[in-house]
Amino acid sequence: MKKEDLETYFDKLWPICRSITGDGLRQTLEILREVIPLELHEVATGTEVFDWTVPKEWNIREAYIIDPNGRRICDFKVNNLHVVNYSVPINKVVSLEELKQHLHTLPHLPEAIPYVTSYYKENWGFCIDYNNYQDLEAGEYQVYIDSELKQGSMTYGDLILPGESKKEVLFSTYVCHPSMANNELSGPLALAFLYHKIANLSQRKYTYRFVFIPETIGAICYLHEHGEYMKNHTQAGFVLTCCGDAGPYHYKRSRRGSSTSDKAAEHYLKFAAPNSIVRNFRPDGSDERQYCSPGFNLPIGSLMRTPYYEYPYYHTSLDNKSFIDFDALWESIASYFHIIQLIELNDFYRNTLMYGEPQLGKRGLYPSSLTHESPRDFLDRMLFLLNFCDGSNDLLDIAEKYGADMLSFKKPLEALVEKGLLEKV
Amino acid sequence: MKKEDLETYFDKLWPICRSITGDGLRQTLEILREVIPLELHEVATGTEVFDWTVPKEWNIREAYIIDPNGRRICDFKVNNLHVVNYSVPINKVVSLEELKQHLHTLPHLPEAIPYVTSYYKENWGFCIDYNNYQDLEAGEYQVYIDSELKQGSMTYGDLILPGESKKEVLFSTYVCHPSMANNELSGPLALAFLYHKIANLSQRKYTYRFVFIPETIGAICYLHEHGEYMKNHTQAGFVLTCCGDAGPYHYKRSRRGSSTSDKAAEHYLKFAAPNSIVRNFRPDGSDERQYCSPGFNLPIGSLMRTPYYEYPYYHTSLDNKSFIDFDALWESIASYFHIIQLIELNDFYRNTLMYGEPQLGKRGLYPSSLTHESPRDFLDRMLFLLNFCDGSNDLLDIAEKYGADMLSFKKPLEALVEKGLLEKV
Amino acid sequence: MKKEDLETYFDKLWPICRSITGDGLRQTLEILREVIPLELHEVATGTEVFDWTVPKEWNIREAYIIDPNGRRICDFKVNNLHVVNYSVPINKVVSLEELKQHLHTLPHLPEAIPYVTSYYKENWGFCIDYNNYQDLEAGEYQVYIDSELKQGSMTYGDLILPGESKKEVLFSTYVCHPSMANNELSGPLALAFLYHKIANLSQRKYTYRFVFIPETIGAICYLHEHGEYMKNHTQAGFVLTCCGDAGPYHYKRSRRGSSTSDKAAEHYLKFAAPNSIVRNFRPDGSDERQYCSPGFNLPIGSLMRTPYYEYPYYHTSLDNKSFIDFDALWESIASYFHIIQLIELNDFYRNTLMYGEPQLGKRGLYPSSLTHESPRDFLDRMLFLLNFCDGSNDLLDIAEKYGADMLSFKKPLEALVEKGLLEKV
Repeated sequence: MKKEDLETYFDKLWPICRSITGDGLRQTLEILREVIPLELHEVATGTEVFDWTVPKEWNIREAYIIDPNGRRICDFKVNNLHVVNYSVPINKVVSLEELKQHLHTLPHLPEAIPYVTSYYKENWGFCIDYNNYQDLEAGEYQVYIDSELKQGSMTYGDLILPGESKKEVLFSTYVCHPSMANNELSGPLALAFLYHKIANLSQRKYTYRFVFIPETIGAICYLHEHGEYMKNHTQAGFVLTCCGDAGPYHYKRSRRGSSTSDKAAEHYLKFAAPNSIVRNFRPDGSDERQYCSPGFNLPIGSLMRTPYYEYPYYHTSLDNKSFIDFDALWESIASYFHIIQLIELNDFYRNTLMYGEPQLGKRGLYPSSLTHESPRDFLDRMLFLLNFCDGSNDLLDIAEKYGADMLSFKKPLEALVEKGLLEKV
Repeated sequence: MKKEDLETYFDKLWPICRSITGDGLRQTLEILREVIPLELHEVATGTEVFDWTVPKEWNIREAYIIDPNGRRICDFKVNNLHVVNYSVPINKVVSLEELKQHLHTLPHLPEAIPYVTSYYKENWGFCIDYNNYQDLEAGEYQVYIDSELKQGSMTYGDLILPGESKKEVLFSTYVCHPSMANNELSGPLALAFLYHKIANLSQRKYTYRFVFIPETIGAICYLHEHGEYMKNHTQAGFVLTCCGDAGPYHYKRSRRGSSTSDKAAEHYLKFAAPNSIVRNFRPDGSDERQYCSPGFNLPIGSLMRTPYYEYPYYHTSLDNKSFIDFDALWESIASYFHIIQLIELNDFYRNTLMYGEPQLGKRGLYPSSLTHESPRDFLDRMLFLLNFCDGSNDLLDIAEKYGADMLSFKKPLEALVEKGLLEKV
Repeated sequence: MKKEDLETYFDKLWPICRSITGDGLRQTLEILREVIPLELHEVATGTEVFDWTVPKEWNIREAYIIDPNGRRICDFKVNNLHVVNYSVPINKVVSLEELKQHLHTLPHLPEAIPYVTSYYKENWGFCIDYNNYQDLEAGEYQVYIDSELKQGSMTYGDLILPGESKKEVLFSTYVCHPSMANNELSGPLALAFLYHKIANLSQRKYTYRFVFIPETIGAICYLHEHGEYMKNHTQAGFVLTCCGDAGPYHYKRSRRGSSTSDKAAEHYLKFAAPNSIVRNFRPDGSDERQYCSPGFNLPIGSLMRTPYYEYPYYHTSLDNKSFIDFDALWESIASYFHIIQLIELNDFYRNTLMYGEPQLGKRGLYPSSLTHESPRDFLDRMLFLLNFCDGSNDLLDIAEKYGADMLSFKKPLEALVEKGLLEKV
């Protein structure tokens, strides 16, 4: 998978009208299976999951309004945001006044069609940009929505990539948003491509769990099925969302605040992107709300670019292909992969010779004559490892004390392990 | 009680010559009883209280000096600060040189009469502004102090306002300072008026203890009588002093440093007056020295305007009515009342559905279609309460995580409690 | 010992060619014994100490190069840095090309002869300033080093200065560097003179251990002999190095990070030299690497001026007498002595009257009339001691709360102890 493939798959996925159930969701997961071999699951309408019930399945074929002049407006075929997601079918003539009860618009962003949903209350509606909204004339409007709500099921996909340990790293993203780019095609695309990098690792300490679900109800279902197991096995994890624009990184901590996810992500950003913004967990946002609900309290953070709520095009038709940047999206994937490498390498080691420094020279690890030109970087990293590997500091702690990215300790670590001076705790 | 009444009572109390014992003190408490129904107590001269002994009772009728030109100066009737508080009676003629041994003045503040006391060493003296001091001519001076030190008693007042719990909030202020305004008529006035607001609360979780005492010896006596009980029952408390000028708020923490008093006062200031100054406890100042002595270590802080020691008019005749500001004093009372409301509301709650988010929609607590215009403030506060009410965070903690005054969580809290989603721990 | 004696001893010690073994080292210790009565010890070549072996003893009489023009260059008699320390004997004619394999120079500091050693790998070499290096002409060079590596011993000196307690303060410095000034004649000079101040104290709570060793191997040997005892008895300690230049203070914390050494040194600097730089422990630098190896983890810090590595003349011939400043060196000694006084005075006291403030007045400790002119400093320090001496704060903690150097609490402390209001825990 190359960077160029990101755009190819973006274009394939873009036009589909996704929702929290239905064929658009299934079609999306099928396309993603070309990149990541997800196993698909269906949860039947009416299934009770904690405090929730899986809703009826929604599908839509067509929707539009005919204005008093006979022109077709708010056409679903032109932009699937024009229809309130989960609208019930309708076919009738209404006055402009009545119509306006069902129209959503954004006066402060007059070019944008807003994204509106009504999953749990049966209703219908259209979304329209404010410029066109203002031009609507008095008269009769025919509103037409050819949709269906039926006993069906909710679809999701997951995949387990095994490692040496049953301890897991969770990656979750959501696939229920219709045609929007950063929030949310960036997350599913990034995660599918990240899968490739992790699957290609020559060895994996951790098992990886990849989850592609509709937001909220999908996470609730997933936790209902797997939550107890995940509670006992999840070492780290991330929700992938809003990672496709060119803004600075924002890391949202897990609810625990100092989980392995948090330590690794913040360590990475400190050296790779020191102007990044790190924030405490808040129970808003995406599926981290469910994973970090107090009963589960999983160590799940989220590395984003510009977060939901914080860019004006959020949840509008202007969050489109021209808003995102495939180079930034590719870099976001690389950042997640770097963090995974940190989590994989991080561990507790113990110095086998704790009294005084070991004599590195006789093991060929010390410059034979210590001059000004000596390469101190390698030597100093070895000294840090030997001094601080006392069982109470992990490699991330030691790299923080030193002041450099922990991956730069990989070779000094291997040299000391090979000479028997360090051993894993 | 209205804001205007503050000035009325200020004017009534101002001229009285208060001290740590005597009729001026009694008269002051009688006037305050028009506002707060204090119970008055007398502690007899000679009573041993911890390391201290209640001193003789002091009363004074008249005092002045006749200068060599026959003019009356330093007249107690003109300003009661002219006499060193607790001066023994005297009536003799002295030279200017001898007189100066008994005169107190402030060269750096030449218009001010200083406030000087000599409670525990029998002595006499006069206080005079430096301008007049410099004009004193050589010659004979008649000094006259018609005072009395006798076996008597020390007076104080207190009041218990019961609440649902025996846990108490303590309010203490001191009533021993003669004619000075910020330090100290502001404290007794503010506390008497604050009493009204607390007494009018429709319900009170805590019992309130109001204490009006002479400084130091009064607090020692009070702790000798009630200290052990207070040690086991005091949840929070404050010393009211220096709260009548228009300066920024200064909060002096309790010795514990993170008591309920401190959390509530600092939370209030963070949002209402972010430029306020917060300081650690120091064993100087007022009666917090006694309440926070290591044997008691009560959770007593102090919310002031400009603290004692930090304004040049402190303990001088220039700390008078024109120095203070009745609007500011009224606002100080409101601030204390706000803090009390925080303390009353603060508690630990637990989410009854800890696994995933509860479905707010089916309980009518979620906007039916989530659009850009949705009122997120109420929703977000509910989400914060649901996520963080796990028994380890109180409401103040949660409001701090959210970033808003905790009183703004009252309605979302009530909504969740009513729906059974939160219950008190 | 006066400040002027520092320079006298500097001049005596300067020309000696020190190393980690040999007669230069012995001669250095003998001269230092004129100031501090060290006991000298020899550790035989081949002795195994932890992971190390004491090397052969090295001595050198003469060394130089004869260039193609017959001129003598790199003459050891002119500057003993010209020879790589621990060079094996050599006497042969080599081409310029071959010679350059054995020459060390510093292109970025062309006037400086670098300091190079090869203790544990037998080799020979010369060090030359880059200006002269560039002028070397093609041709034949005679290289001559009259040195010797033999079965012998490594020399070090130590001294125990007893105190009331067996708890010790360790001072260590290293005496293996040839003719360089800040790193390192400053450390041995400072420590020898500091000894005088400590020996003259009228009473000593702690026992003092003074250690003068060759760097690294000396510390390893010393810990091999005394480490277990020191682990159980060391309360505080410092490595003296780089304390002779006029730069700002740098304090390097012990590995523990909040040992008595760290608390006292940082307290001193906070008030005496607030622009000083305080850093966490790093396992580079000098013998703190050994004392703070994880098996020992002694509470050893280091108060320096400009640290090793951070001045360009470090480990070169330009670190000479003109680089250092005897006033600054003398002040460094005074600073260490101040820190020792803090460590000696620091202790836990307990207020004997914990309930309310003790009445200071009746003990003659309170100003009889409290006026604006009262000396509050003494009073306030007493109040701080009485309030915070509850067994959980030591004097350093209390002085930090107050905001002044702890030595300024000595007299108020003594007054309160004398009156029985404080007693040692």
